[in-house]
Amino acid sequence: MIVVLRENAPKENIDNLTSWLNDQGIKVHISEGHYQTVLGLIGNTTGIDEQFLQSLDIVSSVKRIGEPFKNANRKFHPDNSIIDINGVKIGGGNFQIIAGPCSIESPEQITEIASAISKSGAGILRGGAFKPRTSPYAFQGLRADGIELLEYARKITGLPIITEIMDASHLPLFENVDIIQVGARNMQNFELLKELGKTKKPILLKRGLANTIQEFLMSAEYIMAGGNEDIILCERGIRTFETATRNTLDLSAIPVIKELSHLPVVVDPSHACGISRYVKTLSLAAVAAGADGLMIEVHNNPSKALCDGAQSLTPEQFEDLCIAVNKIREAL
Amino acid sequence: MIVVLRENAPKENIDNLTSWLNDQGIKVHISEGHYQTVLGLIGNTTGIDEQFLQSLDIVSSVKRIGEPFKNANRKFHPDNSIIDINGVKIGGGNFQIIAGPCSIESPEQITEIASAISKSGAGILRGGAFKPRTSPYAFQGLRADGIELLEYARKITGLPIITEIMDASHLPLFENVDIIQVGARNMQNFELLKELGKTKKPILLKRGLANTIQEFLMSAEYIMAGGNEDIILCERGIRTFETATRNTLDLSAIPVIKELSHLPVVVDPSHACGISRYVKTLSLAAVAAGADGLMIEVHNNPSKALCDGAQSLTPEQFEDLCIAVNKIREAL
Amino acid sequence: MIVVLRENAPKENIDNLTSWLNDQGIKVHISEGHYQTVLGLIGNTTGIDEQFLQSLDIVSSVKRIGEPFKNANRKFHPDNSIIDINGVKIGGGNFQIIAGPCSIESPEQITEIASAISKSGAGILRGGAFKPRTSPYAFQGLRADGIELLEYARKITGLPIITEIMDASHLPLFENVDIIQVGARNMQNFELLKELGKTKKPILLKRGLANTIQEFLMSAEYIMAGGNEDIILCERGIRTFETATRNTLDLSAIPVIKELSHLPVVVDPSHACGISRYVKTLSLAAVAAGADGLMIEVHNNPSKALCDGAQSLTPEQFEDLCIAVNKIREAL
Amino acid sequence: MIVVLRENAPKENIDNLTSWLNDQGIKVHISEGHYQTVLGLIGNTTGIDEQFLQSLDIVSSVKRIGEPFKNANRKFHPDNSIIDINGVKIGGGNFQIIAGPCSIESPEQITEIASAISKSGAGILRGGAFKPRTSPYAFQGLRADGIELLEYARKITGLPIITEIMDASHLPLFENVDIIQVGARNMQNFELLKELGKTKKPILLKRGLANTIQEFLMSAEYIMAGGNEDIILCERGIRTFETATRNTLDLSAIPVIKELSHLPVVVDPSHACGISRYVKTLSLAAVAAGADGLMIEVHNNPSKALCDGAQSLTPEQFEDLCIAVNKIREAL
Repeated sequence: MIVVLRENAPKENIDNLTSWLNDQGIKVHISEGHYQTVLGLIGNTTGIDEQFLQSLDIVSSVKRIGEPFKNANRKFHPDNSIIDINGVKIGGGNFQIIAGPCSIESPEQITEIASAISKSGAGILRGGAFKPRTSPYAFQGLRADGIELLEYARKITGLPIITEIMDASHLPLFENVDIIQVGARNMQNFELLKELGKTKKPILLKRGLANTIQEFLMSAEYIMAGGNEDIILCERGIRTFETATRNTLDLSAIPVIKELSHLPVVVDPSHACGISRYVKTLSLAAVAAGADGLMIEVHNNPSKALCDGAQSLTPEQFEDLCIAVNKIREAL
Repeated sequence: MIVVLRENAPKENIDNLTSWLNDQGIKVHISEGHYQTVLGLIGNTTGIDEQFLQSLDIVSSVKRIGEPFKNANRKFHPDNSIIDINGVKIGGGNFQIIAGPCSIESPEQITEIASAISKSGAGILRGGAFKPRTSPYAFQGLRADGIELLEYARKITGLPIITEIMDASHLPLFENVDIIQVGARNMQNFELLKELGKTKKPILLKRGLANTIQEFLMSAEYIMAGGNEDIILCERGIRTFETATRNTLDLSAIPVIKELSHLPVVVDPSHACGISRYVKTLSLAAVAAGADGLMIEVHNNPSKALCDGAQSLTPEQFEDLCIAVNKIREAL
Repeated sequence: MIVVLRENAPKENIDNLTSWLNDQGIKVHISEGHYQTVLGLIGNTTGIDEQFLQSLDIVSSVKRIGEPFKNANRKFHPDNSIIDINGVKIGGGNFQIIAGPCSIESPEQITEIASAISKSGAGILRGGAFKPRTSPYAFQGLRADGIELLEYARKITGLPIITEIMDASHLPLFENVDIIQVGARNMQNFELLKELGKTKKPILLKRGLANTIQEFLMSAEYIMAGGNEDIILCERGIRTFETATRNTLDLSAIPVIKELSHLPVVVDPSHACGISRYVKTLSLAAVAAGADGLMIEVHNNPSKALCDGAQSLTPEQFEDLCIAVNKIREAL
Repeated sequence: MIVVLRENAPKENIDNLTSWLNDQGIKVHISEGHYQTVLGLIGNTTGIDEQFLQSLDIVSSVKRIGEPFKNANRKFHPDNSIIDINGVKIGGGNFQIIAGPCSIESPEQITEIASAISKSGAGILRGGAFKPRTSPYAFQGLRADGIELLEYARKITGLPIITEIMDASHLPLFENVDIIQVGARNMQNFELLKELGKTKKPILLKRGLANTIQEFLMSAEYIMAGGNEDIILCERGIRTFETATRNTLDLSAIPVIKELSHLPVVVDPSHACGISRYVKTLSLAAVAAGADGLMIEVHNNPSKALCDGAQSLTPEQFEDLCIAVNKIREAL
């Protein structure tokens, strides 16, 4: 870490800062220039708060050299991580499509969708049991009952299942779930991340709406620091000024993350754009950008045409997407 | 709510949508134009998901008329809410300064700061016991011990105390806390909000880093829908492209919120800008913009000059701020 | 256009607004609800300023139905536009790679690069003569001399040439240029756009750093309204809070623009991310997302290894990119 | 400037970079750490392109020490600049309110408004002659005729006048204008800035929609580098994800700019929020934040109530604002 001091910083304050850093086990290399003094911090700086240093009166700016994450860092783990979910693998060349409905509604709904997506090539079944909703008056999901239906669909189809957790106290309900999902709004729910670090289950961690890639990796680090190294990262769009799509899908995040970390990265184009007619195109782009997998909303609503065209694809549209994705993967 | 349909939307699909809306208890008024059809939704649309409608193939755009929040809405509660914390009031003309250290460190630290800020005019003591930190390797706060020290400082000074909660399971530790703070990163931790709705304690809810004012009010609504109406809103800066300050303080939010809601709004300039030398100026601006209070970081570190100039003010700088704030308040 | 009025809007003010709209040739259909009144505006509303209406006291919100652009609108021109530059075509299935150096430096530099990229498959040569630089102290380009060198490289290789204009008064210098580029910072330089509307030359219009897709299409409309319909749109990244890449490439913009407009869209991954090692990956993603072309920075600096790895690719890296792009195109 | 190299950067490439920097007149101080090498650049680095260095393969990150602007820099000009417009002063304790209509419409309109605002205390008259409009079909202003009307109003009231320029070729029309305004969309129209640097007129430079404070000051530097040092900076809101106001007014920019630069800063709350009922509140906040002036839209439309409540204030509302502003100024 490099700390650039402000001009005319009083010697006494510099000494105070230096001795405080020494107390944290950090060696300080002072280099005095004509106008400014620069401190080089040597040692384990992962526990040093950049923003704290930045906020000191005598400090002009702080530059971290090297990343503040260790377990998630490719430097210390050059090979791609492969997450193995009972034989279904993601990462290191293994590509998976996770698909299923936004909300679990009934045994018929979830099993029909599960069968359909399995036939088209999806490897993992998703379905929302606990639903994070902006409004307290909106449907909050079937909760425990939803997880049971998901388990039932797994029994029928053999697909491993993934569903979202919203609070650490619900963990016992997730005992038979194969992958636990952390939603964008909980990416920095640090108490939840710590609890998930104590579990042995693969975690799919979604990027927060307004979180940088570094913060994203630090949240993965929270889980990994607890001992759970099976993390799948999920890019799902960030919040920008553009309103034509619900969020702005940041596909640059894939090569950036792959350079910094060994963890697999999947992309959720359904939530990123919020409009089903763009999902296939963005899926192909994600695959071309190097994604290790996709997360796609698929619904099945034969009695009503209502949902056609929502964020979710029909099983037919999903099959079409899978075929196109395979062609791109072969071309790569 | 107004739903503009796409050109050439098939009649069958429109009928499906209409009957689905009717099932939700919503009357639909259809107005057919030359090019496009517009649906007017009449009834209680608070439970209708705008984004879901938006995502339908036959829908071009959706416009909510009226706000999706009720309890927080000024329309149904024209008078300003006044939150009363054992006689210390915020809102409806009552102005309070909440002050204290970023982290609680020791009995001496917290009581010295508490005495100092009390003398300068602060009405409420803040102090971090549970600390949300981006890095798992950074200090996470004294936790339960920190709350005890805070209670001790209240005993000495008589100031009501506020501290941040990070997980609903910690609620028993907050039994003797006067105001529970929800941090920016937990603004959409809906399970936590629901639990707080069941308590009888005033809640200070911070705006999320990338949340709109409407989402902010919806999170207040979550707590209020549970029966707890004592909410203090806190603007603390939003994430933008600008890097000169840690976040961009959005003071326009004050008049906008005051128009939409009856809840009091306080401003936290310390976290918004992250640099102590801007705190006083932004505090005055917040007061001039109509804030019902301020939340200011103050530290007391006589043995070391280290922290001078951090995000926190010294007690002397804080006193100077209080005097300036009073002058602005008198001028208004 | 739909105008939702505020509750209790005085009848007199509504009448004033209605008669003002009538004066603009707009018919107004008034629909009175229990709580609110909604005006439906019928007629040519392209000249009506949404923000003006929005700012009126009696107006709660405004919703445009249909887009404010005509010439750029796919509704009135369902087929994809094909821009023909002396036989080199872009759009409607015709794919082109535009490549060349950031700045034109010397006859040797530009001709060597031109020959190399031509061999690899580029169809158009780019090169900066006028350089928009944040600092007045940075190199501002060879200007007129640069354009001459570009023309010389065209003579040698036969490739059509494109270069950026920064001021309408420079237009005479662009007489022999094949495509005129408008940079991101000039996307809303309306006087320049008007002048370009009077020329007969194809224009490559880059999206502004913080401009929505609708504003982007309105800027194309400015040029088209003047009579010049040969517009190539270029997505080059938008400004967000993320700092890992220079800008955030918004690939969702491609399917959105293709739905709204008939104009071809190319993508500039070099400027979007600013780091050469991500350019190939993002190029493949752009092609998979449906781009009609790419704009790639390529340099040639045999005497010094300095630039290796800059935003620009080496000719060898560019050739590798072209091969990979072709494979993706075949897969689509 | 500090350049942090990537681990294992080849010595040959480092040497190439060093000798290239030497060629630019920069001395390089190399400090080799265990893991990484850091280059300290000594000399005049204002012409060195940070983004270019950042994009090199061997470079991990770049940190500028000291600002890239000189003429606008407070370090080299510690006293506040005072801009004197025929005796009307802004900056260094001199506060001015600039007011007037969005568009100039008629002699009656502009003179009536001018008289009214003059009586209330405005020191400078604004009025739009050239109007930057998103749509080519919207009213583009009275242009040359508008400037004439503005000059006529100056004759009647004695107020100096300010109006916006959109293209350098229009400069002859601005010969009798007292202050030339550069709009947000032209903040990085570098050719225009260069031309304005050659004039002797005070320039009011508006911050771009998505430009950082540093870019803002670099644009001022463009004008100053040409010899014109009379710059007034204007904060007018930045583009964020929030849609409750047209833009997000960034009042933190005031203390930040005042620290970095000696130039005066005024605030335009009318354009920042786009809604007249918030203009007074934001004006008071701007004054409390240390603004050297305000820019306020005022209209006068006795025959029609249409515009009431638009972004513009009525003369009565403007007078009320002036009185409140004075109270805050006295309190400071």
